[in-house]
Amino acid sequence: MYQGSDGVMGAGFVDLRSDTVTKPTAAMREAMASAEVGDDVYGEDPTINRLEKRAAEVFGKEASIFVPTGTMGNQIAIRLHTEHGQEVICEARAHVLDWEMAMTAAFSGCQHRAVTAERGILTWELIKPAIGAKIYYRAQTGLICLENTHNMAGGTVTPLAVMEEVWEGAKAAGLPVHLDGARVFNAATALGMDVGVMTHGFDTVNFCLSKGLGAPVGSMLVGTRKHIERARMFRKALGGGMRQAGVLAAAGLIALEEMPKRLGEDHAHARLLAECVAKSDKVAIDLGAVQTNIVIFELKGGGDAPGFVAGLKAQGVLASAIGPHAVRFVTHFDVDREACERAAGIVWAALGAL
Amino acid sequence: MYQGSDGVMGAGFVDLRSDTVTKPTAAMREAMASAEVGDDVYGEDPTINRLEKRAAEVFGKEASIFVPTGTMGNQIAIRLHTEHGQEVICEARAHVLDWEMAMTAAFSGCQHRAVTAERGILTWELIKPAIGAKIYYRAQTGLICLENTHNMAGGTVTPLAVMEEVWEGAKAAGLPVHLDGARVFNAATALGMDVGVMTHGFDTVNFCLSKGLGAPVGSMLVGTRKHIERARMFRKALGGGMRQAGVLAAAGLIALEEMPKRLGEDHAHARLLAECVAKSDKVAIDLGAVQTNIVIFELKGGGDAPGFVAGLKAQGVLASAIGPHAVRFVTHFDVDREACERAAGIVWAALGAL
Amino acid sequence: MYQGSDGVMGAGFVDLRSDTVTKPTAAMREAMASAEVGDDVYGEDPTINRLEKRAAEVFGKEASIFVPTGTMGNQIAIRLHTEHGQEVICEARAHVLDWEMAMTAAFSGCQHRAVTAERGILTWELIKPAIGAKIYYRAQTGLICLENTHNMAGGTVTPLAVMEEVWEGAKAAGLPVHLDGARVFNAATALGMDVGVMTHGFDTVNFCLSKGLGAPVGSMLVGTRKHIERARMFRKALGGGMRQAGVLAAAGLIALEEMPKRLGEDHAHARLLAECVAKSDKVAIDLGAVQTNIVIFELKGGGDAPGFVAGLKAQGVLASAIGPHAVRFVTHFDVDREACERAAGIVWAALGAL
Amino acid sequence: MYQGSDGVMGAGFVDLRSDTVTKPTAAMREAMASAEVGDDVYGEDPTINRLEKRAAEVFGKEASIFVPTGTMGNQIAIRLHTEHGQEVICEARAHVLDWEMAMTAAFSGCQHRAVTAERGILTWELIKPAIGAKIYYRAQTGLICLENTHNMAGGTVTPLAVMEEVWEGAKAAGLPVHLDGARVFNAATALGMDVGVMTHGFDTVNFCLSKGLGAPVGSMLVGTRKHIERARMFRKALGGGMRQAGVLAAAGLIALEEMPKRLGEDHAHARLLAECVAKSDKVAIDLGAVQTNIVIFELKGGGDAPGFVAGLKAQGVLASAIGPHAVRFVTHFDVDREACERAAGIVWAALGAL
Repeated sequence: MYQGSDGVMGAGFVDLRSDTVTKPTAAMREAMASAEVGDDVYGEDPTINRLEKRAAEVFGKEASIFVPTGTMGNQIAIRLHTEHGQEVICEARAHVLDWEMAMTAAFSGCQHRAVTAERGILTWELIKPAIGAKIYYRAQTGLICLENTHNMAGGTVTPLAVMEEVWEGAKAAGLPVHLDGARVFNAATALGMDVGVMTHGFDTVNFCLSKGLGAPVGSMLVGTRKHIERARMFRKALGGGMRQAGVLAAAGLIALEEMPKRLGEDHAHARLLAECVAKSDKVAIDLGAVQTNIVIFELKGGGDAPGFVAGLKAQGVLASAIGPHAVRFVTHFDVDREACERAAGIVWAALGAL
Repeated sequence: MYQGSDGVMGAGFVDLRSDTVTKPTAAMREAMASAEVGDDVYGEDPTINRLEKRAAEVFGKEASIFVPTGTMGNQIAIRLHTEHGQEVICEARAHVLDWEMAMTAAFSGCQHRAVTAERGILTWELIKPAIGAKIYYRAQTGLICLENTHNMAGGTVTPLAVMEEVWEGAKAAGLPVHLDGARVFNAATALGMDVGVMTHGFDTVNFCLSKGLGAPVGSMLVGTRKHIERARMFRKALGGGMRQAGVLAAAGLIALEEMPKRLGEDHAHARLLAECVAKSDKVAIDLGAVQTNIVIFELKGGGDAPGFVAGLKAQGVLASAIGPHAVRFVTHFDVDREACERAAGIVWAALGAL
Repeated sequence: MYQGSDGVMGAGFVDLRSDTVTKPTAAMREAMASAEVGDDVYGEDPTINRLEKRAAEVFGKEASIFVPTGTMGNQIAIRLHTEHGQEVICEARAHVLDWEMAMTAAFSGCQHRAVTAERGILTWELIKPAIGAKIYYRAQTGLICLENTHNMAGGTVTPLAVMEEVWEGAKAAGLPVHLDGARVFNAATALGMDVGVMTHGFDTVNFCLSKGLGAPVGSMLVGTRKHIERARMFRKALGGGMRQAGVLAAAGLIALEEMPKRLGEDHAHARLLAECVAKSDKVAIDLGAVQTNIVIFELKGGGDAPGFVAGLKAQGVLASAIGPHAVRFVTHFDVDREACERAAGIVWAALGAL
Repeated sequence: MYQGSDGVMGAGFVDLRSDTVTKPTAAMREAMASAEVGDDVYGEDPTINRLEKRAAEVFGKEASIFVPTGTMGNQIAIRLHTEHGQEVICEARAHVLDWEMAMTAAFSGCQHRAVTAERGILTWELIKPAIGAKIYYRAQTGLICLENTHNMAGGTVTPLAVMEEVWEGAKAAGLPVHLDGARVFNAATALGMDVGVMTHGFDTVNFCLSKGLGAPVGSMLVGTRKHIERARMFRKALGGGMRQAGVLAAAGLIALEEMPKRLGEDHAHARLLAECVAKSDKVAIDLGAVQTNIVIFELKGGGDAPGFVAGLKAQGVLASAIGPHAVRFVTHFDVDREACERAAGIVWAALGAL
């Protein structure tokens, strides 16, 4: 995010900064307290084993692995598919490029080949010319990485047909394709599709149990048995080989089973906020890009986004300035309709006062 | 460990494979369920903040950071103190060298300069000649790393006087010193010293809340405010920037406050096992090295350690073969005196049958 | 380059593929044969020492170091100014990004932050918003890298005023600036300026003795004494610590002293070729971008550049296809006016036959 | 080396510091001046092509590649055979560990598993237990690296039978074996064997054209066609993709064809020096280890090696202090019998004066 946190705890606030702020539900807390656990480095944590089995089933893949964060899941995937000195094709505002601490370089030794795509929708037509020529004195392409929904493009959804074309093209080119699916359940909800169907052509998928699904900690990487076996090695290397991780998996199982079905509410709340904002002539917003739980808009005339966000906070609404003029809202489980309506009113007043 | 796990869950067994297998106590589970949490990436998780403050106080350092594993804590420390292309001096059987997936190389780009030390006690006399000559065409030493207690040397304790000499020598040489203190509370218990006093000369210390202290997940890295601030960056990079991590910190606080005081029991249990084993003429054991909660011995005459361990398992005792002829027991919270006595009986019988 | 070589030796051809194909002059060969040499790893090669002293003088910097290639010079500079996990801002078609084997990632652990600039002219206005926000969970900017002349933009020249603004802005932001000056003498020639004056604000400059200056092997990195001392360490690491390298430096001294003054001829020859090409309606060319010794043009209507280049070769002219529709000529010491005129005629005929 | 150079040029001195100080012969200089050259990045340098073909033939391998230094050759080999996060088994004083700037870590992301071997002779018996257990949470062994002759062990020769056992064991274990053969022609001379025969079981061999063979610059890596093709990629990455490198290859061809046959002289000269030294009771020397062109001895009673070396220099003999008490002489083409006899006299006197 453009602005760092300033230590606000969020109590009493309508917190629209990110869906990462969701707190575990009562059911999750209860499950954590009573979780059956073991030493997961030895493969002996029954709750972890159950979660990994379920995630693989839900995505129709052979296997999956629990990791503490989405960054670790994505970076393990990048390491799995590449070797040092190669290139990873991604969209120009991709999370793997902008928010993962240059670990594609620092851990996998690869450079991103960034391709700018409208609304973050990376098509095969855009990807193809970015593939490196097969000459020994040029870095070779090792991986194509998509992001669905695309966070910094505003939670936009890449349609199945676009992904299918990428899968086919990549297969023909002999290239693997990874999905950064941090919010893939939001995408599936928006598409009205089963998450396994909409991701079946990816070699690996990373998705988050935290964020929209509400678990306190954790992401999953799904793929072939062989990929996930190697992933265990890289997870250990990155320091993600936790012991009695079943306490987290217990919450994760609830997140996986129960929470996807309610994401439509978050999308409706985002819509509500977006339409409110769009009515103001102080704001530029691509309403068509508001497809899931994220709303991004620009303050016209070089308006000061950090200042605007500070003003909202004084009124009890937390938002993110993601650029000098750009503001982002993210809806989630911990802000209900009433809270969003209240926030919309405060935002509307603040825009009026600009 | 020399042998991998084979999926045994440990139920009904006396599990002496490692103190990593401890399960959270009822108090820990209760604390996890009711933990006050927030988004720790934004620094807003109150339970994490409390734990980090307490760990710094206990060690008498400025700051600390919660990490999911000891491997991550150690590897962040190595990254903090070095730059790529340097050397890290450590003992020849150090955990950072043998059990951290070559991450000193793969993440920090440094090579270990391994020094063999009796009982794993790295003295300044041994370290000094291992420091690289100050010529541009030789890799320069960047860090000295001690391990106390020393796991693969059998839980041995490096005395304060030895550490003091290292601190002084390193300071004069302009080199930082990190402590892999995964089991530093066992060392403090054995020395009868405050853990802060016995580590005050280290630039950074990593210690585990899991292992002997019984928390399900987590380690802490302590050091100066400046080091810990940079550590947050590297933790994020490694994928350790968890969100509502307070659920883990809640258990960690109990581990930190309550569990160190009972480690003496584990040491007594290890002693019991070691003395039983030492009575057998089939075994070579350095009883003087059994100083904490680890017992390592060799089967004489090229005895088959994996076979011996398999035999114990059939009798309900889980141990580790850590070499072709070497066996290791580790005592911990989940094996009480009675269980250790029972295990000792089974081990004695098994040795008799060799 | 888009197309690989196919083993053509270039004899009898007008070789416009690159100025890297220049062969050493008779004077260079004579100098190599009689060079006074020593062991340069020990700093004892008098010819290397002379060359390094002269290069520093010419650029008005404290020190310089001889390296076997421009790639090594640039990559040492990137390593010097950054630490792993940071970002290097460069133009979207920069040599460091496109033709250095992803070594910014693989050796320095940094990722490029690529900025598209018209004619490759990276201005402060473009650079500023690409600098990473100062928050711990985002990769920090470590270096700004310019390229002058800019190869893939067609040998374009960044004017002094633009560079001055970058130097000032970077200084205020606390960021170092490196120049990939592989063809900096072409830039100086085009600007009619002393090369030291036009580069005085850079922290380090890499320039090539091969390419337009005609030496068989070698580049120089110039900068502060401190930077160059560390550079020796990284050169050794990369395997560039050659022994009696004075044999190469002897040719390099001639390249440095004698060859810059004749680069204007190459520029005139490039102009000649560009103007010939521009007369054809089959071609899109930005004549204003033809400022030095490089000519790039597109075949209109999706024309097949590799096919066109193959056709030229059959007529005795070697060129590069640097994209599906893009062709590049580079003029240099080994193609005189007569050869260029001959080539122009062949190109003209080939365009007519499209 | 323990001591750095102090800028002495060696003129008038008997320079026994290293065989890296040899200067090109008149024939080499003549060949360099008249070499037929081309752009080797495009594979068009005929002299390079000739040298690469000849080196492959001499070693009975499919292909070879010219690199500027032995460090680059070894590090390319390590990169070829491993992936990041693995281990490379080598002897505890190996050049790849002690003198290659930690590049096994910094470029290949691997850590050395160092094994101490008497006289540097790494046997299968020593290697076998150093291979990592096949469990996912331990770094896996990727490569075994031998050094023959072994520099820091005093130019000792590993016999064929020992190497054969390593080749067989490694093959059975599925592990590649690389030879750091910087001085492999010295080994072949000592063994009285063809160099191809004595290295036929290695997957790759690096050898130096400089050092004993007298070329000013350059080493060769030989192996399978497939390995050497990938090696071109890594050479480019490391900045070793030189252009008209044929000027160096011309000298290299003479080094390869003419110089091996005279190495016996250097060995005789080393013997002469060793036997002189051995007569002194101030010195500890393993005469049996003096097998090629290197003589290493210790000054008894904690004698000051740097001081002794300084004293020799004042008398016109240059040597290396390779430890606080250890001195090294290396004989080579530029010190003839007469010079060695003179040096022996000076050394004898200096020892007498201790």
